[in-house]
Parts: sequence; structure tokens; C-alpha cells
Amino acid sequence: MSEKFKIDTNRKSRLGFDEVIFGASKSITLLNELLDEYTRKNENVLITKLKKDKAHSLLSTFKNAFYDEDSQIFILNQIEAHSTEYKVGIISAGSSDIGVANEAFYTLSYMGINAKVILDVGVAGLHRLLNSIDVLKTFDVLIVVAGFEGALPTVVGGLLPQPIIAVPTSVGYGIAKNGETALNAMLTSCANGIVVTNIDNGYGAAMGALRILNLKGQ
Amino acid sequence: MSEKFKIDTNRKSRLGFDEVIFGASKSITLLNELLDEYTRKNENVLITKLKKDKAHSLLSTFKNAFYDEDSQIFILNQIEAHSTEYKVGIISAGSSDIGVANEAFYTLSYMGINAKVILDVGVAGLHRLLNSIDVLKTFDVLIVVAGFEGALPTVVGGLLPQPIIAVPTSVGYGIAKNGETALNAMLTSCANGIVVTNIDNGYGAAMGALRILNLKGQ
Amino acid sequence: MSEKFKIDTNRKSRLGFDEVIFGASKSITLLNELLDEYTRKNENVLITKLKKDKAHSLLSTFKNAFYDEDSQIFILNQIEAHSTEYKVGIISAGSSDIGVANEAFYTLSYMGINAKVILDVGVAGLHRLLNSIDVLKTFDVLIVVAGFEGALPTVVGGLLPQPIIAVPTSVGYGIAKNGETALNAMLTSCANGIVVTNIDNGYGAAMGALRILNLKGQ
Amino acid sequence: MSEKFKIDTNRKSRLGFDEVIFGASKSITLLNELLDEYTRKNENVLITKLKKDKAHSLLSTFKNAFYDEDSQIFILNQIEAHSTEYKVGIISAGSSDIGVANEAFYTLSYMGINAKVILDVGVAGLHRLLNSIDVLKTFDVLIVVAGFEGALPTVVGGLLPQPIIAVPTSVGYGIAKNGETALNAMLTSCANGIVVTNIDNGYGAAMGALRILNLKGQ
Amino acid sequence: MSEKFKIDTNRKSRLGFDEVIFGASKSITLLNELLDEYTRKNENVLITKLKKDKAHSLLSTFKNAFYDEDSQIFILNQIEAHSTEYKVGIISAGSSDIGVANEAFYTLSYMGINAKVILDVGVAGLHRLLNSIDVLKTFDVLIVVAGFEGALPTVVGGLLPQPIIAVPTSVGYGIAKNGETALNAMLTSCANGIVVTNIDNGYGAAMGALRILNLKGQ
Amino acid sequence: MSEKFKIDTNRKSRLGFDEVIFGASKSITLLNELLDEYTRKNENVLITKLKKDKAHSLLSTFKNAFYDEDSQIFILNQIEAHSTEYKVGIISAGSSDIGVANEAFYTLSYMGINAKVILDVGVAGLHRLLNSIDVLKTFDVLIVVAGFEGALPTVVGGLLPQPIIAVPTSVGYGIAKNGETALNAMLTSCANGIVVTNIDNGYGAAMGALRILNLKGQ
Amino acid sequence: MSEKFKIDTNRKSRLGFDEVIFGASKSITLLNELLDEYTRKNENVLITKLKKDKAHSLLSTFKNAFYDEDSQIFILNQIEAHSTEYKVGIISAGSSDIGVANEAFYTLSYMGINAKVILDVGVAGLHRLLNSIDVLKTFDVLIVVAGFEGALPTVVGGLLPQPIIAVPTSVGYGIAKNGETALNAMLTSCANGIVVTNIDNGYGAAMGALRILNLKGQ
Amino acid sequence: MSEKFKIDTNRKSRLGFDEVIFGASKSITLLNELLDEYTRKNENVLITKLKKDKAHSLLSTFKNAFYDEDSQIFILNQIEAHSTEYKVGIISAGSSDIGVANEAFYTLSYMGINAKVILDVGVAGLHRLLNSIDVLKTFDVLIVVAGFEGALPTVVGGLLPQPIIAVPTSVGYGIAKNGETALNAMLTSCANGIVVTNIDNGYGAAMGALRILNLKGQ
Repeated sequence: MSEKFKIDTNRKSRLGFDEVIFGASKSITLLNELLDEYTRKNENVLITKLKKDKAHSLLSTFKNAFYDEDSQIFILNQIEAHSTEYKVGIISAGSSDIGVANEAFYTLSYMGINAKVILDVGVAGLHRLLNSIDVLKTFDVLIVVAGFEGALPTVVGGLLPQPIIAVPTSVGYGIAKNGETALNAMLTSCANGIVVTNIDNGYGAAMGALRILNLKGQ
Repeated sequence: MSEKFKIDTNRKSRLGFDEVIFGASKSITLLNELLDEYTRKNENVLITKLKKDKAHSLLSTFKNAFYDEDSQIFILNQIEAHSTEYKVGIISAGSSDIGVANEAFYTLSYMGINAKVILDVGVAGLHRLLNSIDVLKTFDVLIVVAGFEGALPTVVGGLLPQPIIAVPTSVGYGIAKNGETALNAMLTSCANGIVVTNIDNGYGAAMGALRILNLKGQ
Repeated sequence: MSEKFKIDTNRKSRLGFDEVIFGASKSITLLNELLDEYTRKNENVLITKLKKDKAHSLLSTFKNAFYDEDSQIFILNQIEAHSTEYKVGIISAGSSDIGVANEAFYTLSYMGINAKVILDVGVAGLHRLLNSIDVLKTFDVLIVVAGFEGALPTVVGGLLPQPIIAVPTSVGYGIAKNGETALNAMLTSCANGIVVTNIDNGYGAAMGALRILNLKGQ
Repeated sequence: MSEKFKIDTNRKSRLGFDEVIFGASKSITLLNELLDEYTRKNENVLITKLKKDKAHSLLSTFKNAFYDEDSQIFILNQIEAHSTEYKVGIISAGSSDIGVANEAFYTLSYMGINAKVILDVGVAGLHRLLNSIDVLKTFDVLIVVAGFEGALPTVVGGLLPQPIIAVPTSVGYGIAKNGETALNAMLTSCANGIVVTNIDNGYGAAMGALRILNLKGQ
Repeated sequence: MSEKFKIDTNRKSRLGFDEVIFGASKSITLLNELLDEYTRKNENVLITKLKKDKAHSLLSTFKNAFYDEDSQIFILNQIEAHSTEYKVGIISAGSSDIGVANEAFYTLSYMGINAKVILDVGVAGLHRLLNSIDVLKTFDVLIVVAGFEGALPTVVGGLLPQPIIAVPTSVGYGIAKNGETALNAMLTSCANGIVVTNIDNGYGAAMGALRILNLKGQ
Repeated sequence: MSEKFKIDTNRKSRLGFDEVIFGASKSITLLNELLDEYTRKNENVLITKLKKDKAHSLLSTFKNAFYDEDSQIFILNQIEAHSTEYKVGIISAGSSDIGVANEAFYTLSYMGINAKVILDVGVAGLHRLLNSIDVLKTFDVLIVVAGFEGALPTVVGGLLPQPIIAVPTSVGYGIAKNGETALNAMLTSCANGIVVTNIDNGYGAAMGALRILNLKGQ
Repeated sequence: MSEKFKIDTNRKSRLGFDEVIFGASKSITLLNELLDEYTRKNENVLITKLKKDKAHSLLSTFKNAFYDEDSQIFILNQIEAHSTEYKVGIISAGSSDIGVANEAFYTLSYMGINAKVILDVGVAGLHRLLNSIDVLKTFDVLIVVAGFEGALPTVVGGLLPQPIIAVPTSVGYGIAKNGETALNAMLTSCANGIVVTNIDNGYGAAMGALRILNLKGQ
Repeated sequence: MSEKFKIDTNRKSRLGFDEVIFGASKSITLLNELLDEYTRKNENVLITKLKKDKAHSLLSTFKNAFYDEDSQIFILNQIEAHSTEYKVGIISAGSSDIGVANEAFYTLSYMGINAKVILDVGVAGLHRLLNSIDVLKTFDVLIVVAGFEGALPTVVGGLLPQPIIAVPTSVGYGIAKNGETALNAMLTSCANGIVVTNIDNGYGAAMGALRILNLKGQ
């Protein structure tokens, strides 16, 4: 009836990074075909939002692949550390946000950027954040991850001058509305120049950071 | 066709405070009749959310009345200071929130409680808040007013142990949704034991504080 | 890659109560590490919104722990009754709200406050509430729990003078919208001085009550 | 280009009542043409939701017409009382709801049904409602009007056995959402057999009552 | 800790019908206790929204009970037909709405009212409805059930003069929003005097019909 | 600072129709410059959603222009009838929808298509629609306009086989939500193959009809 | 109690196509009865949105039936290709949209229309779309399927003159809101004359295309 | 009663830019006091979202001030061009977006950054965008402004590698929901690494660009 997919072959030369696969809605059959194609072309590939059961099925076929259960990220071939200098600081309000923080972390690693994750600096215990300020100043870009009321980027944005990409998470319940409250709070932050991604989009924040670092010439 | 209104005559003995009139949707004719009734009974009364043009019309008839344009509060007879001790601290994120802060302030004054308003301690300039902590510790109850992303109650709640009543305001634009974002953020605060009122409900926060102070025996 | 969590060590001295763990989004691995840490420090800890399967896994390791299935509350060490005087009355509209009522009850118990739960005083059978008024007058603080249309706090607020913390629950269906209708109804209550928490947040209501009781000097 | 309107000529024989005109979105030109048509046919007609300025323009042409500013109802010819027996009780939570209550009242009058409006029996002062129960028992149908949290129909529904038509109003502010909260609260009422109309739809409630009274044979 | 439930013992004398139990959020333990209590008092009881697995567990204990899987209604003792005259017509747009239609049907049966269900008269095939008009005219009250765009009550309301209770269902997908679109469409119907219940609330429609029939004297 | 606008010069050859200007958000200065440009190029142009005051200001400069107040459409040069055959039937539920119906009508006229508007065939008086069926069968495409509950396209879609473009209007109040309810109802229509435009988008419906007629070869 | 369903027997002669069954909410018992009925009448039938487990149960009884897991379409009897000319082009932004694309494809096949599916021409890699323009020009009607931000129909609408039916899909996460964002984006497209269906409604798009092709005389 | 405002005096040293005043909700009295304070300190200041009537009142006092009506930006002292090199490209889908584009432009100018505005490169006439690609490649950062369906950032993000800040505008009508649709579309863009601001927040986008340029060392 139709070909199943079209790979965006010149994205790297056009944009400076490769295509990435959204795993959530694809069947295991389609994913196998895609990974076969990348294997045949001897290329690496990143899959986001891949459920555990699909991942384990793929892992049994693609033995070199890496999968992180918290972030649901799947990488065809293991990636290695690139340098010892941290370019991007990924900070989160609570340890429940680890999945989204890790999605940003592994995406950056895959793109060749070294990042550091710092959890549990939420504003309900402000001293934890204030004690981390000197470390936070050393990063080129900050990715700030928070669920519930999403106040962390606002406080960080009032304290630090770097580019700040705020990532709301679906952590919370009730009127947290699966992250919509955190998203809206970040978008209406009274701190200046905070920019925002979709809910749980650690991947997108990493790509935004990559665009910024590419500008700086890394 | 029908009697126009029924005054809740024993509210004071039942609840410890008098009935208050919601002014927004009432006609000027009805308001005049109500104020006449209270004047005849030689009682004072408070009207909330009263538009400027209606207020000025009433002021021309009821010469002793007081009206605050920022908060749209109207009081039949001027009230006087009760003491020099501040029981309630009303703090706000920005000077745009002055209307809601004043609504809480005048309601408390009317109920015989001394309060103090402290504006512009928003979290985007955190030092302004941190410099105020010692003053804030002296209040029995804190009413924390904020629009936009509504982060202030969360930060205050992580720093101070008193009862905290958070009041979202409709200050902001776009996805601030006339205060809905601040409201939801306050309700999902990761700080503990923050309680919340309707958007722009400075009056309700004051009444909540009154219930608490009545418990303490003031 | 990163440390997993940061405990907020001085919260007790700062706010008068200890840190509490949000259990819903944390992995069983992380929860085990956290409980180990608290056990090592010989401290007790409370976990909220913990699913049954995770709780049973933890219970097999931490033999002294307590878990209530209705409220999904987990406490590292069994707590004992503190006094025979009830400070807080927790009343609910229907027996379906028992989970949220219990969350408030156990949180208060853990914090050393004695509370009493009174179910099924919903306004559709008003006499049940009216018959309970004398008992309700004896409490310092009222936590009023309701789902569906959430009318109970409004009626209670018109009858009783104490601080009232309203807790909407997700009980209901259709346009009850998982508690959003009850939440909004409570926030727009025509009764005076009702304050509100997030949907199903019995824990937050208990903490709000604790702040008030601390003010009174218990 | 086209004829401007089509009158539904046999509605009376089909449904037992005449067509009614929705005035809010119609131009003054169109309304004049419609009223001319009804005058020519020597028939009466009811227009709902007619803004004051349009009404006054029409009143200058149609000298016998009646207009009620609170309810924005316009009737081509004055109507007269039909009997002294009240069939329908229209009760409201606050005097701000008078417009919607009147819309129901005048619609019923126009249809030949005698109704009585009772304002200010809101649940925040429950005794006012409880004192009215004996009167309320005398009506065949109850139309219960409320804004803000819309709790009144729930309480009435738990006390009285008649058909109850609940009408939410747009009275309120903030998260009252122009009546949406009251609407949703009424729809999720834990009282049994409450039926509901659109926000501010006093007209629709009257028509619903008419269908019921027609069944009873009035 | 607390008594588990309070039965509303005089509802029948007050309102003309007995209390009914909302089954969706209650534990199997609580439901067993409730049914034991009713059995001990030798009374019948109706439970709504009871999931299949809970129902089957109860059925193994209470052998005389009746359960309808489509409507999730559970009745402690089988009910018998009361008469051969149909008082209420329950019509639905599609056969997918059978669960909600049955909920109304069995509730009415339990209350002693004979009803008839007529499925598949949706407006997309208008002739099926037009062919049924003569039958529909014979009912005292019409309960009109529809999902998707919920147009059926509007068309019926333009054709027939009886009291019409519209019940939106959650049948549909996408922007049907689990019944919210049908609900809003019914509330804004351009047909006159349509009254509406919560989504999937066949039970509430039946109770509304009962109030009307009680007025008529059945 | 920048050029003010870029005209899409080859749209006609690419798509078969010219660019059209959205008038709602443009300043009168910008609109004058645009019209000057079109006048200089000796071309006609259509402006949609143009407020009355702006239109009258432009009419004083561009004497040949045409403006329809109901639909807020402005055309630089008067257009003339093209034929006597009606290709498109534009039908509406009520005469309040005339503005949107006219927007479709004048857009089609401007594009050279003859259309006919038929108002007041709403489903609450079904016979008016059924009486029009023979006329409706003669059109190539049907544009069906409705506000409130938006049921008309569903009924028409069940009776007639042509392409049907449904246009929701913002006519209504309360939970009609400025047309959102009608929009969602049309999108979830149980009639087959109904396609939908944005609220009040008579222009878009006309353009959709034009694409269809172009396919047929008119 | 009632007959279970009414088949719309003359839909073909009235509208040019047969009735189709919505499978999502129907029980397996009801579906079996329906299929038996169609088998007995020796007719074919199409069922949409049929879950895999129900489908497999039906397939075991109806051996000639066809089921496509991606689109959840079930057809009583296998259908055969009708011609080699493609009338309708079904294009999608990503391979995750295959289910909705296939729903349109199989519905058209069932109705006797030949279509072609072209996946992965999303606007993030614009060259893939631009390279396909010459092929896309050959279709009579375009069905454009997209999830996430739903930008594809806008870009296609600016490039091509045919009738374009846009179908939003629920592919995406977070603020994509199960397709609501794509739906709203398509409805507000700045491209001219795009018409839209419900989320995931590939079936409806196919039926809309069929109405258009019937007009052209295929 | 209280001091009126607190200026955040060390923001420049902390974050690299000065405080800015949100003008929408402040009274003319308060704004005059603020501007006096800045004049006294001999500093410049920027006010955003200032309505025309307030601006003209201030302009009559502060003669050197600059006000742009489209963007509602007010600057205490005229600013001068800083260089001839454009760092930031501000592109918009339509000329109706000029206000938001200008807000970004003047904010950047005020902060000492040279920017260029390019209007009318919306995706409905794709060639206009494709023809601008070479110019767009020369900017360090792209601010992409769009209303309606907000598709422009997605297309730009697939073509160009720079940091892209997407700004949704409230231009549109109906289901465009005052910019909410464009906002959600941008947040769910299938292009990689797009970051987003609040609706109409040209100011915030400029500040985000400033953070990025500060990192690069300008």
C-alpha cells in the first residue's frame, strides 16, 4: 500500500544534528524496520518516549543498544563520554523529575555534549538552591526541570544570567493537570527571558541547548 | 413581585463577623436600598468589588462612606485604627497586585484587625524577600498575593512556619489566563500547608485570617 | 551521573515539621534508598500517594512500617496516639471520600495531632450535618472533604466559626472532572473565609491545620 | 439576497407554546421587522437577552411593549396576572441573581403561569432557607437559581420532593468562570434528580417548568 | 478511628424515594458492610456505577442480587414488573448508549415505574425518529440519551411537548471529550425547555422523571 | 525599521484564487497603505473581519468600495452578479447567523460563484428544513451555518448527499462558549463526511467550497 | 426490554453510501448480532475503532473478514482493488500517523475509491514535501493527516489548489492534548479553504472525500 | 499604609540587564511616581504593555520619552542605534503581528542589541520564506512570531540551525483562543529545539535572546 517511512537524510548538514525517532506511537514492527535500516547504514540513532516492553523487545535483537527506564530513551549504540567539562547544567525541583532530567542528559550525551544533573533543589527548601549557586554559575546553559507548581525556573531566573530553558514535568496530581500548571507557570514567569518547552520534553530542551551551544561555537 | 433582599441578621453571633455585600452585580438602585437599610439600623457595612462609577454615585448620598479605588472596597462609615500591633502581614509579588492586597487590608481593618501591606517582594529579585524575613516572622498570619506564575507563596512557605493564605491575582496576560495559572500553581505548591482562595479574593483571605485569629483569641 | 536526592535537613527547625516524600512518581529503587537513609539516621518518615504494589514491596523490607490502602499513606515506623483530645475534625460528604479523609488523619497523627474523622454528613441529607453541629463546635480546626459538587464546606462555613480548610476529592464522574468541579465550587464558596487545597490533598490540609495549631500554641 | 426570517407558525399546536426570539445577536433593523410582522398578525411575542439600548429604541416605536432591565426581557404587549395561585417557586441564592430569576418569572407570566420569586435564601445563611421550607412545599415546581459555587439546588434537593430545575448564573468572579463552576456543580449534585439548564437561562427553566405543568394538566 | 457510614434513614418520607449508593469509589469491604446492613434491615438497595469485578464478588455473597453489566447497576433483591403501562420513554441515538439507557430503565423499575427503551433513533437517519413519533407521544416523560454531538434532544424537543430530560453520554472520541461536547450541546439546545443531567447519569434522569411523575400523581 | 508587508503575488496561479486580507488586527494606517497598493496595481481585494469604524474611514477614501456591516466584509471594488445559477447553498439555523452566512456569500461572489442564503431552517422547527429539501438538493455544495448547539449540519448530513461544510458561529451564551460548543458538536457529528471550519469562518467555508467547485470544473 | 438496534436501511439511496458501525463502545455480543444480521442479508459492512481483542474474537467467527490493527478497521468481507487510478492522496506528517491514514485508506477502498498513502512528509524536513509536489498534484482530493502541532495542512494548503481535508491525530504528548492542539491549529490555519474533521477521524475524512468525488461524478 | 514599590537595584550586576516595568495593571499615579524616581536617579527605564491613554498622559510630563503604539512600549529616554550589524532576526507570519515583533525589537534596542524585523513570511505563501533563507542565515538568534495556527516556527526550525525563540500572538479569532492555539502548536512543534514564550511576549523573547547573546559574548 505504501512505503512505511522516509528518513530525513540531510538534516545533519542542514541543522547540525541528526533525525531522532519518536517512539511512543510506533509499532514494534515499524521500530525494528527502522533500526535495521540504521544498522545497515552503520549509523547510530536515538529513540525517545519508548515504553519498557517495546524497549526490551528491541534490546533482545540489538545487543549493543542502551536503554534508560526512567527517561524511556533508547540509543542504538552505547555512547561514550566526550570530555570532562560540563556545558549544560540540568537541575530539577525533586527526584521525581529524574526521568525528564535524564532525557535531556542522554540526548545531550548522544549529541556529544557533556552535562551534569543536579536533583532536589526545589524552592520549598531554598537553601539547597542557594548553596548550589556557585556550581550553577559554571554552566553555559541551564535546563531547569520542575513539576507541580513549576516555580524553580522563576527563582533561578532571578539569580543567574545564563540562557535558561524551563521544562515542565507531569509530576504532580489534581489541578497540576499532568504538567499543564507547571507549563503555564513557567510561561508566565516574572523572571526575564525564561524560555519553555512542552511538558516532559527533556529531549527538546537538550536540542534547544544544542542550538545555543552551536552558536557559541562550543 | 417579591421582596428584594434578606439580611442575614444573626451572622455575627453565629460566625463572629457580619454579613458583607458583593457589589459587582447589584444595581445602583438595590445598593441604595441596602445602604439605607443599614443606615436606618445604625450599622456599618462593607461592600466588595464595587465599580468606580457606582461607588461615586453612592458617595454623593452617603457622605461618611469610604471608597478605595484600587481595591474597589466601599465602607459605609469610615473605620479607625484599632491598635498599633500588626497581626497580619499582607505581602505581594508586585505593585500591580495592590488592589487585591488592599482588599485584604481594608477588610481586616473593618473587622478590627491591624495589618501591614508589603509590596514588591516577588521571587524574581529574591534578595528583596530574604531581606524582609525578619519582619515577616513577626506576623501571626501571612496573606501572600501574586499574579503571573504565582511562585511567591511557595518560596515563603518554604521559609516561614506561620499559617499562609495564598491569593492569586488576575495580573498578567496571555496564558496567565486572568489568574487561573497563579491559582493552579498555588494549589499545587510543593511547599507544605499552603491554603488558597479564589482569584483576586483579598476579601476571602482576610476572612480566613480572621477565623484563624479568632481561634488564637487574638 | 548524579546524586539521587538531597534531604532537606533543617526543615523542622525552620518550619516546625519534617520533610515528607511524594511517593507517586518515584521508583521502588529510589524509595528503598530513601528509606534506608532514614533508617540509618534513625528517623521516621511519611510517604504520600504510594501505590499498593510499591507499598507491599517496601513493607516486606521495612517490617515496622505502616500502610493504609485507602489513603495510600506509608509511615516508616508505626505511630502511637498522643492524647485523647481531638484538635481537628475531619468531616466528609460521603464514605467514598474516606481515602482523602484518612490521608489528613494519618498525617496529623504523624505530626502528633489527634484528629477525628466523621463521614457521611453530606448536604443531600442535611439533618445528618445539623445533628453533628455540637460535636463539630468542639474542634479547633475543621477539614471538610467533599467530591461531586463540593457543597459541604459552604454549608459548614455558614454554620460554624472555626478555621475551615476545604479539600475537594476526585470522587464523582462526568463533568465532576476528577475533582475540578468540587475544587472550583469550594474556591467560589459564598461562605466567608473558606480556604482550599489541591484535589485529594488531605496531606496538605493536615499541614495547613498544623500551621494554624502551631500559631495557637496547640 | 434572501428573505430575512422564517416564523415557526405551528409551534403552539405542536408543542403547546409559541416561538420566542433570541434578541442578543439580532440587529435593531431585523428586530423592528420582526415586531412589525407580529403586530400585523395581531400576536404577542417575547424577546430574550435584549440589551437596554436596543430595547429603548424598540419601546419608542412599540408603545404597549414591556421591558425589564434586570432580566433583559421584552414583551410586545403588556401581560396581565392570570390567577392568584403560585404554581412555580423561583428561589435564588442572592439578590445579584435577580435578573435570571426575573427572566424565568416573566417568561412564565407570558405563558400564563403564576410564579413567585424568593431571593436571598443562599446556603451561607442556612436558616433563611430552612425558615422558607413550608412556603417552598406549596409550589408544584421549583426553579433554583444560584451563581458562585451553586450549592443551593443541592441543599434544596435534599429537603424537598418536587421537580427541581437548577439554573446556574454568571454571578461571581475569578474561577467562577462566568457561571461554569455553578453549572458543573449543579450537574454533579449529590442530591437526586436535579435537572439543569444553561448558564443564565431563566427562560429555559421556565419552559422546562411549563412542559412539566402541561403534563400535570396545570 | 471512625464509624464507616451513616445511612440517610428518613429520605423516603422526606423526598419520596430511598437512598442509593454510588458504587464507583467504594472498596469491596465497605460495600459488603453496607449490603449486610441493608440485608439485616430487610430492605432493598440500589448501587450505581459498580464495576464488573466488584459486582461479581458481591453476587457470590448476595445470591438474590441482580446486576446489569451494560449499565453497571446492582440491586440487592430482584425487582418485578409493576404494571404494563409505560410512563417513561427512554430513547437513544445509538446502540452504544445502551448502558446509560439501561441505568435509567433499571432505576425507574426499582422505583416502581414502568419504562420502555427505544434505541437507534439518532438524527443521522431522521426517518427512524419520525417513524417513532406516534409511540413517543404516549409517554409522560421522555429521557433522551445521546453521545457524540448530542443533537437528538434538540430534534425531539422541537417535535414533542412532554417534559424532556436530556442525558449526554461519554460515547464518542477525540473532541467529544468523554461526553462534554454532548453535554454542552444539550445545555445550549435551541429547542425550548430541555433540561439536562451530568454525563452518563441515567440514574439522575430517572430520579428527575420520578419527581415529575410524583407531581402528576403517577 | 522594516517594510510593512509582502503581497503574495503568485497565489492566483498557484492556488486559483487571490490573497485576501485579515482586517481585524490591522491598523487603519496599514490598511490604507495596502489598499493604495492594490489601487495602484489596478486590482481588486477582499478584507475580512473589518470593524465598522475602520470600514467607514476607508470608505471615505475609497469611494467605489463595498462594505457589509453584518458580515464585516469590505471589497475594494463593487462586484457584479456572474450568473443566475446558484452553485452553493448557504443555510443557517437562525437569523442571528446572518453575519457569518453573508461572509460566505460575499466571498463566493467575489470569487465569481453564485450562492443563495436560506436563513431560519433550524432543527427546533424541523418542518422548515424538511420543506426546503427539494431546493437544497439543487446546490453543488452546502455551507451549513449554526450557533448554540450546532445540530443543523448533523440533520442535513443525514438527509442530503452533497459535500457539506459546517460553520459554527459564536451566536449563543453561557456554555455555548462563543461557538466552541457548536464547533465541537459539528466535529463529532454522527452524520458522515461533514467537514468543519473555525468558528465564524464563513470566509473559510466559501474558500473550501471554491476548491471543491474548481475540482468539478464549475 | 427492547430491540437492540435499528439498521438505517435506505441510507445508500438517500446519501450514496451505506451505514457504518462505530465499534468502540459496543459489546462483543451486540457486534456478533449485528454481523449475523448483515451476513443473513448477504451484505458487507464496515466497523470502525474496533479494539484488537474484540476483532480477533469476531474474526474467529467470521472467517472472510478483514482487520487492520493499525487503524482498528474491520470489514465483514475482504474488498478488492477497483482500479489503478488514485483519486485521493492521503499524506501524513509522520509514520506514527499510519493508523489514521489507514482508516481513511480502507474506508475509501470499501466505498470503491482508490487511494494512495504517502507517509513522513512532515514540515520539519520540508524538502520531503517539496519533492512530492508533482505526485500530490495528480490527486483529486487530498487528505492531510498530522499530530503534534498539525502544521502540515497549512503548508500543503499554501502550495496546492485541490480540496484539502485535514485530519488531526492524537499522536504527541503533553500539551498536544491527545490531538486537540493539532485540531485547533488546523481549524485556525492561515491557508485558505482547509476543512477539518474530528481527531483521529480518518473515516470521516474519507466520507467527506467521497461526497466531493460523488459531486465530480468520479 | 505601605510603601508603594521596591526597585530591584542590583539586577544589572546580577543578571546583566536592568529591571523593566509591567505597565498594564499599574495606575497612572503609580507610573508617574516610578518615572520620577528613575528621572531623579538619572536612569533610563522601559515599560511594557502600556495602554495608549496612559502613555499619552505620561508623554505630556516626560518630554524625552518614546512610545510605540503598535507594541505599547514606553521608554523614558529615546534610545539610539548601537551598530549596523543585525544580531537578531525577528520574523513574523503576518503584518498583524507587528505589535509583538516591535516589542521584541524595541526591547533589544533598549538593551543595546541591533535587530531586524521581517514581516509577512507566513507559511501559506511558502516561497516568501524560502526566498528569505539566505538573509535569515546571517542572524545569531531568530525570534519567530506567529498567530493563528502558529506554524511558522516549525517550518523555520526545519530549515535553519540557529537558536529559535517562538512567540505566539493573540492574532486570530474563534478557536485561536487569543493565542492559546498558536502557543500549544509551538510547544508541540515537530521541529527540534524550538523554545517558546508566553502569548504576545515579544519582550520575553528579546530577553531570552539577550541571555543567549551574552553567553556568546556578543
